[in-house]
Amino acid sequence: MTPKPEIPSEETLDPQDWSEMRRLGHRMVDDALDYLERVRERPIWKPVPESAKQALRAPLPTEGESATAVYDEFRRDVFPHSMGNIHPRFWGWVIGTGTPFGALADMMASTMNPNIGGGDQGPNYVELQVLGWLKEMLGYPADASGLLVSGGSMANLVGIAVARNAKAETDVGQQGVAGAPRRMVLYASSETHNSVHKAMSLLGLGRDALREIPVDPDYRIEVAALRRAIAEDRKAGLHPFCVVGNAGTVNTGAIDPLPELADLCQAEDLWFHVDGAFGALATIAPGVKPLVRGMERADSLAFDLHKWMYVNYEVGCALVRWPEKHRATFVSPADYLAHLSRGLPAGPIWFSEYGVQLSRGFRALKVWMSLKEHGVKKYGRLVAQNCEQAKYLESLVEREPELAMMAPVPLNIVCFRFAPEGLEDARADAINEEILYGLQESGTAVPSSTMLRGRFSIRVCICNHRTRREDLDLLVKEVLERGRAALAAGTAEVGRS
Amino acid sequence: MTPKPEIPSEETLDPQDWSEMRRLGHRMVDDALDYLERVRERPIWKPVPESAKQALRAPLPTEGESATAVYDEFRRDVFPHSMGNIHPRFWGWVIGTGTPFGALADMMASTMNPNIGGGDQGPNYVELQVLGWLKEMLGYPADASGLLVSGGSMANLVGIAVARNAKAETDVGQQGVAGAPRRMVLYASSETHNSVHKAMSLLGLGRDALREIPVDPDYRIEVAALRRAIAEDRKAGLHPFCVVGNAGTVNTGAIDPLPELADLCQAEDLWFHVDGAFGALATIAPGVKPLVRGMERADSLAFDLHKWMYVNYEVGCALVRWPEKHRATFVSPADYLAHLSRGLPAGPIWFSEYGVQLSRGFRALKVWMSLKEHGVKKYGRLVAQNCEQAKYLESLVEREPELAMMAPVPLNIVCFRFAPEGLEDARADAINEEILYGLQESGTAVPSSTMLRGRFSIRVCICNHRTRREDLDLLVKEVLERGRAALAAGTAEVGRS
Repeated sequence: MTPKPEIPSEETLDPQDWSEMRRLGHRMVDDALDYLERVRERPIWKPVPESAKQALRAPLPTEGESATAVYDEFRRDVFPHSMGNIHPRFWGWVIGTGTPFGALADMMASTMNPNIGGGDQGPNYVELQVLGWLKEMLGYPADASGLLVSGGSMANLVGIAVARNAKAETDVGQQGVAGAPRRMVLYASSETHNSVHKAMSLLGLGRDALREIPVDPDYRIEVAALRRAIAEDRKAGLHPFCVVGNAGTVNTGAIDPLPELADLCQAEDLWFHVDGAFGALATIAPGVKPLVRGMERADSLAFDLHKWMYVNYEVGCALVRWPEKHRATFVSPADYLAHLSRGLPAGPIWFSEYGVQLSRGFRALKVWMSLKEHGVKKYGRLVAQNCEQAKYLESLVEREPELAMMAPVPLNIVCFRFAPEGLEDARADAINEEILYGLQESGTAVPSSTMLRGRFSIRVCICNHRTRREDLDLLVKEVLERGRAALAAGTAEVGRS
Repeated sequence: MTPKPEIPSEETLDPQDWSEMRRLGHRMVDDALDYLERVRERPIWKPVPESAKQALRAPLPTEGESATAVYDEFRRDVFPHSMGNIHPRFWGWVIGTGTPFGALADMMASTMNPNIGGGDQGPNYVELQVLGWLKEMLGYPADASGLLVSGGSMANLVGIAVARNAKAETDVGQQGVAGAPRRMVLYASSETHNSVHKAMSLLGLGRDALREIPVDPDYRIEVAALRRAIAEDRKAGLHPFCVVGNAGTVNTGAIDPLPELADLCQAEDLWFHVDGAFGALATIAPGVKPLVRGMERADSLAFDLHKWMYVNYEVGCALVRWPEKHRATFVSPADYLAHLSRGLPAGPIWFSEYGVQLSRGFRALKVWMSLKEHGVKKYGRLVAQNCEQAKYLESLVEREPELAMMAPVPLNIVCFRFAPEGLEDARADAINEEILYGLQESGTAVPSSTMLRGRFSIRVCICNHRTRREDLDLLVKEVLERGRAALAAGTAEVGRS
C-alpha cells in the first residue's frame, strides 16, 4: 500500500475539459436563439406534464454528472415548460418579454460575476451611467440618487422607507417607529398596487396606516377625498407623511392626477412617491408623455425595466430626489466595509448604502447593452405602439355587441368581457372565467383577469415588443367563439380558490 | 407623393438578422470561456483607466447601433475592468467566484425569462426542487418554507420580519409596531453583520432595539451576558422576541454556541434566527459540520449560494420552519392576483407570498444546474478544502515571527497582520494598510481589511474554488516583502475616508 499523500491535490469547479464546455456553450446559444426566433410558432403555454413534474422531484444529487447531461435534462424537463411571457400573445399581469441580446448580456454579466456593492470596477461605472440615462429619460433631476433593484416592489419599499425616515418627527431608523410622537399615515388610491401595502406592513407602519382613497370612474384618485382624509387625520392627532401617486395602475393603467398631487404634497409638506412600475415609461413616448406629466416632481420614483422596457428579469429602479436622505435611510457602517482611500474599495459610490442589498449582481449590463442596441427613441416608439395596439383592441371590442369594455384605456391595458345583452352578471363572470381558462389552456393567448366594480374581467396588458395587431384580432375572435360556445353549452362550471 | 399608410408596420426588439445574432452569441461564449480559463494569468484587479471612465460617461443613446458594435464597446470599456473576484487570489469581504456553467445557466434563464411569482410553469418546480435540496443539505425540516432571494441581507430581512410578526403581541403587520403594548427587542452579538442592523431599522423596530451582546475572545456571543440582557429587558417592561445566532461571523468566521442559543430560545419563548450567510455551508463538509450543529434548530435560517456555494450572483436563501407564519408575513391578496383553479396561475405555490418581490427571476436555474453538475459531495469537499487552506495560511503566518494572527480560524477566514516585535500599534496599522493597498494595486492578491480589538487587520476570506495553497504562499511572501519595505522606507502615509 502506498501511503496517502499528506497534501492532496486541490479540486476546482472549473471544467476539466474547457473545449467540451465551449462546445456546449455554442449549442446553448443556438438553442436559445432558435427558441426565441420560433416562439410565435409554439403554443404560448401548456400545463407542465407529469413526467417533468416527476423529474423535478428527484432527490438531491450527491455525485455530479457531465454539464452536457445536465443541459439535456434541462432541455427535456424545463426549457419547453415556460411561462410563455416571451410569446407575442402573452398579455397577463404586467410582465415583460425580454430580448435575445439581453439574455446574452446576462451571460457576460454572470461571467464577470462582480459584486456591485461598490468599488473601483467597470460594472460600478456602468450602473452609474445607466442610472444617469434613466434619470434623463424620465426627466428626473440629474443629481438625484438611484439604485437598480429586483423590481417595482423593492423600488416602492425603498421610496417609502426613505419617505418614512425623512418625514418622521424622530429618528425612527435608530429608535423605531414606536418612538414617534404621532402615528404616521400614508395615502394612496384604492387601485394602488399591493406592494405598497406590503411595504407599509414591512416598515412597521402597518397596513392600517395606508388610507385607501376612493377613485373616480376613470379609476383615478379623488383628490378632494384625499384632502379631506389628510385634514381629518391631522385633526385626530395623526401624522400624514406621504402620498403615493400611480403612474399607471395595475388593474387598468389609470394615471392619478400627478400635478395636483405634487401641488398638494408641496402645500401639505408630504413626501410624494410615484409608483410608475410600468407607466413611468410612458414619458419616453412623445404622444403619450403628457399623460404622466407631474411624475418628475416626485420625491421618489419607482419603476421597472423588466416590464415596459422589455429588459430580461430582474431589474427595476428606485430614484430619490434627495440623495442624503436616501443614503441616511440605508447606510450602516461596519469595520469590514471601511472606505479606504486607495485600492479596489475606493470607487465612486457604494450602492449598498442606498438599499437593502449589500451584495449586488450586475443587472445594469443588460440595460446598458439594450439601450445602446436600440436607442431610447425606438423604446419610445414601442411604448407608443403598445398603447396604439391597446386602442386598437378597444376598437375591436367596441365593434362587437357581445363584448363590453370594463374600463377606459389610458395606456396599454384593456379590460373587457363577454357580456351579450340579457346575460346576468354572475353567469357572465363564470363564462368569462371559462373563456380565460380556454385561452390559456389552448395555448392561444394569455390574458389575466381582475375584478372591476365587482365583475370578473379579462385583462390584456401589452408590455410586449412581439405583439402585432393580428394577434389581437385572433384574441377577439377566440373570445367570441369561446363565449358563444359556453353560452350554448349552458354551463360554465368554474371554481376559484 | 404616396400617402402614408394608415397602419404603419409594427416594430420589434428582435434582431433583424438572427444569424448575425447567432454569430455574435458564439463569439461571446468563446470570449467568456477564454476569460475564465485564463483568469489566473491576469492581474486580479487594476484601477479603472480614465479612458473607460470617460466612455462610461457618454450621454443617453438616442439611436441604436448594431449589437456587435455594442459588444465591442463592452469588450473595450467594461470586460477588462472587473472586480476580480473570479481570480484564484481574490479573498476580499465574503465574495464568491461563480462558475462557467453557472454563467451559461444564466443565459438560459434569461432566454426563458419567466416571472417566478408563481404559476404552473417549469421554473416554479425547479425552484421548489432546489429549495428541497437545500433543506436536505442543511438538515432543515423538509416541510419548512423557503424562498430564493437576492442574498443574505434580504434573507435576514425575511427571517427577522417573520420573527417580528410571529412573536408580536398584536397584529403588527396590520396595525404597525407602535400598536404593540411593549417594545420588541432583538439580541445578537457585537460581531453580527450590519444587514441585521439594517433590518431592524427597516422593520420599524429601530437599531436601538438590537442589543449588541459582547463576545468572548473567540468572537462568540457570551451566553451569560445574553441571559442577563434578556432578564433586564423583561424587568424593564420590554418584549424580547428574537435571538440572532451567527454561523460564521463576517469578521473572523466565529460560530456562536448555537445549541445553547437554541435551548435558551426554547426556554424563553424567543424566535431563533440564524445568519449563516456563508457559514451555513460548513454543514455539508463532513469534517467541519460539527461546528455549526444547532443551526438546524433555527426558526429561520438565512444563507447565500453566491458565497460559499460559488454560484454566480445573485442568489441567497431564506428558510422558515413555520410556513404559515412565513406566508402570513408577506401575503397581500389582490384581485389581479386571484388564484384561479385552472390555467397558468394554478401552480403549486406563489412564491411572491413569501417575500418582498412579486416579480421574480429564474435564479433557481444556476443553482439547479450547478448542483447537478457537481453533486453535493464535491461542494462538501470544496468547503473543507477552503477551511484547510485557511488553516494552511494560519500555519504560514505562525511560522513567520514578523507576522501575527489576529483571531482564531474556525472556518475559512484568516485575520493577521505584519507586526514585527517592537513596532508600535499605530505604526503597524499604517503599514498594514499600505501593504493592503500594494497587494491590490499590484494585482497580486485581494484580501480586504477589518478592525479587530481596535487594530487594522488584513482579512483573507476564502470562498474561492480556484485558490491553491501556492496562492497563499505567494500572499505571505508578498506581505512580508511589502511590510519590510514599508518599514525600511520609514514611512507609510495613508489616509482613510
